[in-house]
Amino acid sequence: MDLKHYLNSQRQRVEQALEQVLPAKDHHPTSLHEAMHYSVFAGGKRIRPILMMAACEAVGGDVEQVLPAACAMEMIHTYSLIHDDLPAMDDDDFRRGNPTNHKVYGEATAILAGDALLTEAFVLLSAPANTPQLKADTQREIIQLIARAAGAAGMVGGQVVDMEAEGMEQPDLATVDYIHAHKTGALILASIRAGALLGGADTEAYEALSRFGKLAGLAFQIADDILDIVGDQQELGKDIGSDQERGKATYPAVLGLSESIRRAQELHQQALKAIEPLGEAAEPLRQISAYIINRSS
Amino acid sequence: MDLKHYLNSQRQRVEQALEQVLPAKDHHPTSLHEAMHYSVFAGGKRIRPILMMAACEAVGGDVEQVLPAACAMEMIHTYSLIHDDLPAMDDDDFRRGNPTNHKVYGEATAILAGDALLTEAFVLLSAPANTPQLKADTQREIIQLIARAAGAAGMVGGQVVDMEAEGMEQPDLATVDYIHAHKTGALILASIRAGALLGGADTEAYEALSRFGKLAGLAFQIADDILDIVGDQQELGKDIGSDQERGKATYPAVLGLSESIRRAQELHQQALKAIEPLGEAAEPLRQISAYIINRSS
Repeated sequence: MDLKHYLNSQRQRVEQALEQVLPAKDHHPTSLHEAMHYSVFAGGKRIRPILMMAACEAVGGDVEQVLPAACAMEMIHTYSLIHDDLPAMDDDDFRRGNPTNHKVYGEATAILAGDALLTEAFVLLSAPANTPQLKADTQREIIQLIARAAGAAGMVGGQVVDMEAEGMEQPDLATVDYIHAHKTGALILASIRAGALLGGADTEAYEALSRFGKLAGLAFQIADDILDIVGDQQELGKDIGSDQERGKATYPAVLGLSESIRRAQELHQQALKAIEPLGEAAEPLRQISAYIINRSS
Repeated sequence: MDLKHYLNSQRQRVEQALEQVLPAKDHHPTSLHEAMHYSVFAGGKRIRPILMMAACEAVGGDVEQVLPAACAMEMIHTYSLIHDDLPAMDDDDFRRGNPTNHKVYGEATAILAGDALLTEAFVLLSAPANTPQLKADTQREIIQLIARAAGAAGMVGGQVVDMEAEGMEQPDLATVDYIHAHKTGALILASIRAGALLGGADTEAYEALSRFGKLAGLAFQIADDILDIVGDQQELGKDIGSDQERGKATYPAVLGLSESIRRAQELHQQALKAIEPLGEAAEPLRQISAYIINRSS
């Protein structure tokens, strides 16, 4: 398979679906809806939705079924970026080369645009099923797993610990593991699990994909940390070494660069092993994860 | 019925349930969980949960069934207060006589505590049903109506228009109506609708309660606006006349005080008429709404 072509075409599907499900830009109040659109269409790679679709494919499911949940996941991811960038949080002026939401719309509207994106994600996830195959109880289960992954025991908890770790002299491995498993890992894992459930995975396949999601999610984050040190600025759209400057709790800071690279590769091998039984159908998932991890090393 | 006793006992039930469903204060990361507890247990009157329970009673339902959704509604209401009080928004230092969340925990943690309360509300709403009577599709429908009421077409939209109206020379009635119907009315209506659905309302009772919820919700807000002018400071816990000072879009500012009082009473009469067919079972709902509206005039 041609990975570049695959990623492009999946990204386009997600973006078309997002255009359909997001309230229109000219909806009253327009400032809110423009701010929501601005960040949702600010050039994200749509990694979480694409992983959700690939997990659905891996169990032989129909990818169309996944699009609403994939959009909801991207909206939750976008809300988290808007709030992370706020002056009270990371105080970032730029993201992916563009001014951050609060720089364009002001802090109050940015907070509310984030709140609205998070809430509208649940509007989408709880909408009447668009296909008769989707059972209400599966929908409930997907809302449950996504909300848990995004909440206090997931992404928000990880963000709090990340903030608190910035003040630490030398963050320990347990703290870095906690931050990554929660701040970014939880939504990656939830994306893959939601894709598996919507694709009709049996228990065995669901467990295999869960294991893949945990291991690969952690490997992605180590790769991100490495990229902050060695990557080229254009690819990342933020200043190289900005994590270091801030004293962020990262893997290279705790383990050193070469051990971090080794660990990312090892986790990836374990992740691939977990989904071996899924055979050819899981090929997109394998190639996507290899791509994410290898762009850094 | 003894209304004071009724309100107290329902408030206690809600608070006991909230203690059970909120993640414990000593959960890691503790700063986040403490901040969530601080605002949830800052002395709210629990009007929305109590209305939800009374709507359930009004259709002969079992109030126990309503408690998780009632807690979720209070968590959403609390998140909205935390975010509204932020420096970038209303910049309030006190609420109900206590320092606001960001004054105690800092702005970053306050933003994240709000985010977490909103998200955990959906964790609660999508939890496996605690009674076999609760159908997954009813749960889905309740998530849908609460998320819509809280999102861009509901509470968040109302907050945006409220902020924008502060700059207006003379806000018009349509703007004031929009703000109140969305910023506060939407969650009141959703509380009553969720109570009706969980109580097993038939279509007729559901429509009657919806009509009651729209009319009474608007009357509550007019009463609140009036209370800001004439009320005693202790009851409200904020400075009297603070809406006026800020140039907030309120009913008295647009209609004058005596016309506002007349309108609140008229809306309340219409609301009571809507639920006449529900008979004796709707008595708590009638008395609660009378109490909320009459404390101001």
